[in-house]
Amino acid sequence: MTRDDCIALDANDPLAAHRHKFALPDGVIYLDGNSLGALPRATRDRVDQVIAREWGMGLIRSWNAAPWIDLPRRVGAKIAQLIGAQAHEVICADSTSINLFKVLTTALRLQASRPLVSSRERKVILSERANFPTDLYVAQGVIDLLGQGHELKLVEFGEVAAAIDDCTAVVMLTHVNFKTGAMHDMSALTSRAHGAGALMVWDLSHSAGAVPVDLNAGRADFAVGCGYKYLNGGPGAPAFVFVADRHLAAIADDTYAQPLAGWLGHQAPFEFVADYRPAASIDRYAVGTPSIVALSVLEVGVDTVLAAGMDALRAKSVALTQLFIELVEQRCAEQELSLASPHDAERRGSQVCLSHPHAYAVMQALIRRGVIGDFRAPDILRFGLAPLYVGYADVWDAVLALHAVLASHEWQCAEFQTRETVT
Amino acid sequence: MTRDDCIALDANDPLAAHRHKFALPDGVIYLDGNSLGALPRATRDRVDQVIAREWGMGLIRSWNAAPWIDLPRRVGAKIAQLIGAQAHEVICADSTSINLFKVLTTALRLQASRPLVSSRERKVILSERANFPTDLYVAQGVIDLLGQGHELKLVEFGEVAAAIDDCTAVVMLTHVNFKTGAMHDMSALTSRAHGAGALMVWDLSHSAGAVPVDLNAGRADFAVGCGYKYLNGGPGAPAFVFVADRHLAAIADDTYAQPLAGWLGHQAPFEFVADYRPAASIDRYAVGTPSIVALSVLEVGVDTVLAAGMDALRAKSVALTQLFIELVEQRCAEQELSLASPHDAERRGSQVCLSHPHAYAVMQALIRRGVIGDFRAPDILRFGLAPLYVGYADVWDAVLALHAVLASHEWQCAEFQTRETVT
Repeated sequence: MTRDDCIALDANDPLAAHRHKFALPDGVIYLDGNSLGALPRATRDRVDQVIAREWGMGLIRSWNAAPWIDLPRRVGAKIAQLIGAQAHEVICADSTSINLFKVLTTALRLQASRPLVSSRERKVILSERANFPTDLYVAQGVIDLLGQGHELKLVEFGEVAAAIDDCTAVVMLTHVNFKTGAMHDMSALTSRAHGAGALMVWDLSHSAGAVPVDLNAGRADFAVGCGYKYLNGGPGAPAFVFVADRHLAAIADDTYAQPLAGWLGHQAPFEFVADYRPAASIDRYAVGTPSIVALSVLEVGVDTVLAAGMDALRAKSVALTQLFIELVEQRCAEQELSLASPHDAERRGSQVCLSHPHAYAVMQALIRRGVIGDFRAPDILRFGLAPLYVGYADVWDAVLALHAVLASHEWQCAEFQTRETVT
Repeated sequence: MTRDDCIALDANDPLAAHRHKFALPDGVIYLDGNSLGALPRATRDRVDQVIAREWGMGLIRSWNAAPWIDLPRRVGAKIAQLIGAQAHEVICADSTSINLFKVLTTALRLQASRPLVSSRERKVILSERANFPTDLYVAQGVIDLLGQGHELKLVEFGEVAAAIDDCTAVVMLTHVNFKTGAMHDMSALTSRAHGAGALMVWDLSHSAGAVPVDLNAGRADFAVGCGYKYLNGGPGAPAFVFVADRHLAAIADDTYAQPLAGWLGHQAPFEFVADYRPAASIDRYAVGTPSIVALSVLEVGVDTVLAAGMDALRAKSVALTQLFIELVEQRCAEQELSLASPHDAERRGSQVCLSHPHAYAVMQALIRRGVIGDFRAPDILRFGLAPLYVGYADVWDAVLALHAVLASHEWQCAEFQTRETVT
């Protein structure tokens, strides 16, 4: 494999035209789309239209005329196409953390209403120790708030299936791990959870737009996910929430099954009645008034993914991550790197993670060379290979830059040692 | 008073220059800034800068470099200046509904930890029957979720003080009523609540940027508010939350006193540890990643209010609402209108509400004439007089248009009768 081979792969890439739909700075290889997706070129005009025309000229009338009121469901329906959900099972709202709070409380409530199959109460929320921390924090907050003796049980990646038993109320997992890119088998684990009488909550933050997801094929119960990574929805984009329609039906008469009762979750928000009556739909997972500007930015991002198609994206993603790993193995073999992601592409999302004892400084030096990945404590170099805008030659150049940083020891420069609070 | 007198008042208006800082459509008199503030001219450029430069070129680096990470506190500190709070007591986050959930749960938790002063438990959340419904819904959701036998007690506007007793855990009020514009006496009610051992939560959605507020002078405990009304933060702008620093100190060791435990509320989010340890500051009222685009839009809006100054805004607001009422009394006396707002400016926010048996159709006809107010069920015509961009001649013209709609009976046209779902 040579750089020219990579250039040839780029030239023959069926997704090549999509790359030009993104505005990326010159001299930068951007391998952090798993943290913040790149800017679609169409976003600026769309946002300006929303601000100048819909807000500025339409003013309050745009809630009906644009119509803004449909936006959470409209963008939700588009995301549904990417995650194997029906349009009416997904809505955009709030943040991933808050959506997780909603579905976790719903799931525990549904469990509490079911007859026990054994003498043991279902009080365990089972998750992965290496789950993204906010998921664990939200679960801890829910447990404390309910005060019903629930427990958060954390196990290692490969131990989840074996840990599911008749005490398990909910299995809460992130499909693709934020730090390693390791991907759970959604269907198998959902099936295992159901077999034991547990409900399954999936966090798709590193999956939506990155890998094909089929929630309904696997009969997932609940899911949440983030708009600002592979969906290219901009910094802090609104999140999404999925509730399987059988559960929407099951909670139809349970007023506070989604306990964040806000006016936009009401069945008739504009009647302004004093008593909460939830909408008989996914709308009850809305709470307050959503940011129309942020949702509009997100919609443009989701459209970039839909235009490319998940199958083509996955095929290129696998090829890119495989190439990255092979080149690291060939070019950086003598360095202190080890692969922290699964070697098998079937078990990996769209990122490759390497561990290195001085990962923070190495990443700073790499960024100085124009290769932007990120660092995750304590020792992970994280490279997101978003197939919409990353090419094969980018991978080649990135690995060569990594080799240069390591071989030259330039990461040892004092300027790369001081950690900023945020990465 | 003649139209020329109004034009003279506009010419001598010390805030006249501020009007030109807003983009408003020709031929429209916009009296709905209490629902959605107008577009500041500076917003388009600022948003484009955030999108094209900070996101597009800065990419993930902008979290540190812009720095985006400071935005919730920076905008919160600006809003603090408008509501009599200290900079470190306010943060922008989520929606008003969700922020209310946070502070209501904190308040109930603080109450539960205090010794009782009588033999009766404090289980009452006291509010106003005509409060904005989402506030009531959130309280109902919290009560159900906690399952500790709390009760939401609703009384009429003028009955709140008398209803506070030793069963009251929390008094939760919206300072300026969304439908009538009637304003509570913040200091007196807070003092009354404290005297009875209750805590006080204020919703400032119709106050921030509309009337002077001094939370700390009145020793308010908690407050929330909305960014998209008088703060001109755009449709669905992020909301804000205030927690008095004595309470931030009191809950420092209570991990889940704010139960929506998200990673940005953690004291060290980027250490990615598995256990939630809240920040020892207002940061713990952050949850997930906030929309940077939406916060940037909000900041421009807040700046428009700060530039004018609350005292000047209030003086003009009082003059505008007084003029509106006087002109309605003079010009529309023979119509079926009655004033639904307090006559005394001291007890009124920056809006004037009139009731009319056919309010919906009347408002539709008025909008057709280019005067945009809104309708609130069942019979309210609502006119928000945002002093930043509404002038005296606007008030004159609006009242004449109202008179024309009523005197001509044009509101009886069939086209004005069909209600849209949203207003």
